[in-house]
Order: sequence, then C-alpha cells, then structure tokens
Amino acid sequence: PDWGVEVRDGIMQLERVYKFKNFKLALAFTNKVAELAEKEFHHPGILTEWGKVTVTWWSHSIKGLHRNDFIMAAKTDQLLD
Amino acid sequence: PDWGVEVRDGIMQLERVYKFKNFKLALAFTNKVAELAEKEFHHPGILTEWGKVTVTWWSHSIKGLHRNDFIMAAKTDQLLD
Repeated sequence: PDWGVEVRDGIMQLERVYKFKNFKLALAFTNKVAELAEKEFHHPGILTEWGKVTVTWWSHSIKGLHRNDFIMAAKTDQLLD
Repeated sequence: PDWGVEVRDGIMQLERVYKFKNFKLALAFTNKVAELAEKEFHHPGILTEWGKVTVTWWSHSIKGLHRNDFIMAAKTDQLLD
C-alpha cells in the first residue's frame, strides 16, 4: 500500500496508511510527521490508531493537490528510515 | 460542539472535535489522549490537523459502543483542563 488519491468533499488529497506493531510506535511516527509539518509550514491530517497512522496531504489554499504535497508525501516516507 | 455518535461501516462511534489555536497545541492534546489510551489499554482514533483534534472512541471487540467508551470520552474531556 502506497500513496493514493482520495477525493473528500470535492477536494483531492494524497493519502497513505502506515502500519506499526503497536500504538506507541504509531504515535512516535505521528510525532515525526508533525515535526516535519511544523518545519515545512505545511500541515497534513494525521490519524493515529492502534498499529496504524493515516497521513493525508492536500493544499488548503487551493483546495486540492499542489506539487508541494507530493514532495511532502515523499518526505513523509523518508521518516520511516 | 460536544460528543456525538457517528456510524461508520455499520459501527457506532463516539466522536468529538476539539479546537486549538495552532498545530502545536493540537499535537500536544493528541499526545495527552494517547497517554490516556495507553494507560487504560483502550485506543481511540485521533485525527490531528492544523488547529483541531478529532477523537473517536469505540470498542473494537464488539464493533460498537460499550459503557467504557463513554467513560473514556469523559476522561478525554478532563485532559483539557
């Protein structure tokens, strides 16, 4: 499972589900993504659940996808290393 | 806006949106809810976005709402203090 495009309320969004062994590891990833978001001044939706984190990128200002969202998606993947 | 009941994929869930002034405050609340979840061995969905956190409680084992979910919802509210 990699990044996919979802449409919600007419807004195209990039979304990926990351799986983890437990809640603690999921939360740690959430905090890493949050740190990236603050650093880049671009904020995704981050859904933290037991064993998984769903990250959703889109550009609020244009209500859709911008090149920057794809860059942020790639940077999010790099946080797994 | 207080707790409401949402039905997703046939599963009743308790949900509340908490508003914050920025992403950092939203993330701090997410981590507080996560700490509560780990302590109580009951894990909600926590959606962190810029300025808001959506917390969703339900009981995975019964695919619906248990008395415990209402208790967790009340405990979540107490984290705001």
